[in-house]
Amino acid sequence: MMFGKTLDTTAVSDVLPDWPSGPLDRFRSKASFDWKQMKLLLEGEDVIRFKHKVWSAFEQEPLFARTPWDEPSRDQERQLTYKRLKKLAGFKFVDEEDYIHNPYLVPAFIQSIGQYDWSLCLKRELSTEYFILSAKTGGNHDHQTLIDDLKATRALGAIVITELAHGSDTKMLRTTATFDPATQEFVLDTPDLEATKVWCGVLGQTATHAIVFAQLCTPDGTSHGIHQFLVPIRDPSSLRPFPGLLIGDIGGKIGLNGLDNGFMQFKQYRIPRSALLNKNADMSPEGEYKVRLSRDSNKKFGKMLGILSCGRVFIILKAVANLQSAITISVRYSGVRKQFGPSNDQEWPVLEYQTQQYRLMPYIAASYVLHNFFISIYRDYVDFLIGSFVLDAPHEAEMGAELHIVSSAGKAMCGWITRDAIQESRECCGGHGYLKAARLGDLRNDHDANNTYEGDNHVLLQQTSNFLIKLYKEKTDEGKAIDSPFGSFLFINDVESILQTRVGDSLASLPAVLSAFQFLVCWLLKRSVAKLEELGDKDPFVAKSQAQVYYLRSLSMAFFECDVLQRYSNFLQETTAPENLKQVLTDLGLLYAL
Amino acid sequence: MMFGKTLDTTAVSDVLPDWPSGPLDRFRSKASFDWKQMKLLLEGEDVIRFKHKVWSAFEQEPLFARTPWDEPSRDQERQLTYKRLKKLAGFKFVDEEDYIHNPYLVPAFIQSIGQYDWSLCLKRELSTEYFILSAKTGGNHDHQTLIDDLKATRALGAIVITELAHGSDTKMLRTTATFDPATQEFVLDTPDLEATKVWCGVLGQTATHAIVFAQLCTPDGTSHGIHQFLVPIRDPSSLRPFPGLLIGDIGGKIGLNGLDNGFMQFKQYRIPRSALLNKNADMSPEGEYKVRLSRDSNKKFGKMLGILSCGRVFIILKAVANLQSAITISVRYSGVRKQFGPSNDQEWPVLEYQTQQYRLMPYIAASYVLHNFFISIYRDYVDFLIGSFVLDAPHEAEMGAELHIVSSAGKAMCGWITRDAIQESRECCGGHGYLKAARLGDLRNDHDANNTYEGDNHVLLQQTSNFLIKLYKEKTDEGKAIDSPFGSFLFINDVESILQTRVGDSLASLPAVLSAFQFLVCWLLKRSVAKLEELGDKDPFVAKSQAQVYYLRSLSMAFFECDVLQRYSNFLQETTAPENLKQVLTDLGLLYAL
Repeated sequence: MMFGKTLDTTAVSDVLPDWPSGPLDRFRSKASFDWKQMKLLLEGEDVIRFKHKVWSAFEQEPLFARTPWDEPSRDQERQLTYKRLKKLAGFKFVDEEDYIHNPYLVPAFIQSIGQYDWSLCLKRELSTEYFILSAKTGGNHDHQTLIDDLKATRALGAIVITELAHGSDTKMLRTTATFDPATQEFVLDTPDLEATKVWCGVLGQTATHAIVFAQLCTPDGTSHGIHQFLVPIRDPSSLRPFPGLLIGDIGGKIGLNGLDNGFMQFKQYRIPRSALLNKNADMSPEGEYKVRLSRDSNKKFGKMLGILSCGRVFIILKAVANLQSAITISVRYSGVRKQFGPSNDQEWPVLEYQTQQYRLMPYIAASYVLHNFFISIYRDYVDFLIGSFVLDAPHEAEMGAELHIVSSAGKAMCGWITRDAIQESRECCGGHGYLKAARLGDLRNDHDANNTYEGDNHVLLQQTSNFLIKLYKEKTDEGKAIDSPFGSFLFINDVESILQTRVGDSLASLPAVLSAFQFLVCWLLKRSVAKLEELGDKDPFVAKSQAQVYYLRSLSMAFFECDVLQRYSNFLQETTAPENLKQVLTDLGLLYAL
Repeated sequence: MMFGKTLDTTAVSDVLPDWPSGPLDRFRSKASFDWKQMKLLLEGEDVIRFKHKVWSAFEQEPLFARTPWDEPSRDQERQLTYKRLKKLAGFKFVDEEDYIHNPYLVPAFIQSIGQYDWSLCLKRELSTEYFILSAKTGGNHDHQTLIDDLKATRALGAIVITELAHGSDTKMLRTTATFDPATQEFVLDTPDLEATKVWCGVLGQTATHAIVFAQLCTPDGTSHGIHQFLVPIRDPSSLRPFPGLLIGDIGGKIGLNGLDNGFMQFKQYRIPRSALLNKNADMSPEGEYKVRLSRDSNKKFGKMLGILSCGRVFIILKAVANLQSAITISVRYSGVRKQFGPSNDQEWPVLEYQTQQYRLMPYIAASYVLHNFFISIYRDYVDFLIGSFVLDAPHEAEMGAELHIVSSAGKAMCGWITRDAIQESRECCGGHGYLKAARLGDLRNDHDANNTYEGDNHVLLQQTSNFLIKLYKEKTDEGKAIDSPFGSFLFINDVESILQTRVGDSLASLPAVLSAFQFLVCWLLKRSVAKLEELGDKDPFVAKSQAQVYYLRSLSMAFFECDVLQRYSNFLQETTAPENLKQVLTDLGLLYAL
């Protein structure tokens, strides 16, 4: 939100045409601000132009044509998505230079594809971007030929982690990779049905390569924990799986049916020793397991947390994009739809009703406030990446940990807020909202996955509370000041004085509500720690489970709201926007906060 | 719930076999009660046997076979539903005698079909039952030939009300039926696109007859308001629409795609004078409009409200059925699914986690409490029908009004509670819950319609608050005691003394919570009336809109909860169930209440 260099909208008038005249004119003419200025402030000229470029290209490409009445079968959706993925690789919207010049083009690209079709967006991310990132950072060779193939969609990758019986608890995965020194190979094996790999995107029909998470075993049968293996799985020309693999499609899902999620079983499937991604540990030709010593394992752990936040940061973006789509549909419909009125010749647009406003306005506010939250946490993420990989910054572990804490709660809460916004939008559109063509059903069905994948939301809230408790205890027990490079929990250093302050009578300003939330976070921290001590004679695992409701879970939720408001307040303070825009933004912030 | 004559489960052991042994045994063995006794208490032997008969017939009929992996296209769903409807008409599960003997078999039948497939259930209801009811009560001839055809599915009916621009506000429908004395015909006409009939179930592809709601106009062009016309629309053998009608399918919906919802435009479509359902008004051959004088229009209005409650009463049933389906899936899954644990060799079923219990238990409680709510309001409905049509009871208008008030809020609130229960169930099943085969997506998509059709939920809440305010004012302004034949709002007669009582410290019993809710309803009534007076200088329509949030809407919601608890308390007081069942039921009631 900080790169609205200028608010002169003439500069973007070629890509932001005026609205066509219609029944919404009466509402639009009442606006206290210029929507083009607002857009310029929030997105900046580069992003606006870039999105316009992407969507124009989609509009002109026959393969991307569709109507709201299409009802493709799952097979057709799969084929379309595959063809569009290949076409997408041919468009050259940006090169990597552009991304470095303006990193906001990355989320702009994801959002542009996703608002067109989330299956396509995910298929691209999983098969190409995440796969390349994992291969690059995993070690062993430079994989350049494969990466070139992936970028050109001659090869597609699948990240293969989850098993039928283990999802969130990845340490318990049971697929084995046992080294056989005689042939210098690993033997991948699926011990039983419950260890079948499932849900992996792109695996069902199209992936040619997989990064497989499996227990690495030395020839003596000892397991050394989960490691990653880069494995060819299908012939790239025929897309037939190689012998020794049982691969299939997991079938219809609630949404995202353009994406081929699959399952896989290994039957003594042999891969070369070099398939192990050996950055952190390696296997000698003799079958000896060797951990690579790290300079600083704590630092490495923090850094890893930061890198793993990537998926969650982008789910926050996806949630915000879905929120914006849903609320746009329902607010516009509410402006057009008339029903009842003081007299028969004077029907009201349903948007004029208090109830309809009460149902929709908070989500309009959320779409602004959470957009800022994403922009802000994405900036932190970019700073972390630069700090970590380019500058070797001193705080990279703390940056990584902070990103982990904020993005865990953020992903969960943004996912839920959007879920509720889509549902309210669907109901606000009455019967017409139940039509497939209204798109709210598809939005809901596609968005739904965000609440359970990349970490189940409830498990993620536990991550946030675990880390907050740890920091708090380090401070209170060891007197260690809390390091918060991005400022999200600096205020916890003042926990005692915050708990002494009483919130004033009025909550009619953003700073007042923010103070109230800071108080709440501190209070819940203290109460949670006390609750955990009260349960101290139990196993820590049991104690943590029994302190979720009213304590740890509430703590994570309050922390999220607090952080969202903090980031929004910062934005309002720093922005040089014209006063009328600032007023609207302040009102929206306060409405969201309350 | 009152007909559990005996709790000797040996009597139903042939239709209630024991559970097969499996991973849920460890939970089932801990139960403090016998589930068969509970079932017998809540449903009674007749209903249990009847459902078993229906489902056994479905299991044995190849046309009803299906798997959780089926993904039929919309066309295939339509064809299957049509064929199954015809097959269903051939099964003779009950005759009308049985229904009179035990009226609970009616909802049992609806639930049995619906839990198999809601599209089939709705198609049957709309095309046959509601249609026959409307034709029978509408007047003009006895329609016996048509009714016989409908029962044998040689003909299918569609109730055609909603237009593109008017749904909830039926008074504003704009389709016209103008009488032409020259030919003794009505001419049906659609004045413009916005007056196109839409959404009507069964109309899209299969209805042969329609009951059309249209403005009746005399030859001089005067409109006499909305009347119903029984109109043939398709040739029964070819299913081709007759000339003068433009009929089509409205396309894909979020769910219920086995049901063919359609649209229709009339182009000077001529129907005989006798097509007018003339119970309340008629047209003379000379073109003179004549209202039939009613003995007591107030009484007639109350009676009509009661009859119209039918659709809502059954949506409450449908919501409860969906709630039961969803919670059964998620609780069983949570008992089987293990993830994490105090140590690696001791993984916990996720049902053991506090958070999972916190998420699911309230909905288990709701499934019991709302089941009782349905049983209770259905009993009232049956009493009303008998009182109204058989006995000509003195209170039939008040009974009708009370049913209207209770079923309006009940339909809205049960719809929402089930919506939330399905969503929580879906998320509680993690990734596996996102599979189509898990059924939670289809449940959600099918149930979704319940929140906007048969009266949008928010509009229905207004119905409840409007009537409550009216009764309250009649009492306070005119000193008229509130007549509540079913006892739902008798307590409002004591409004002043209730507002004087202070709720005790403890809310740990059902009577205490019920008193608190009665207080809340009284308080909201008083506050709402004050708010409306405060807004008194505005148009009453505007005032009502501006008093929704925090006042009228909250009033309806609190009234619903109060009534639900009242009915549940009555049940607990009256039941002769064994003490261990009663204890569980009391706990569930209290959990729901809090």
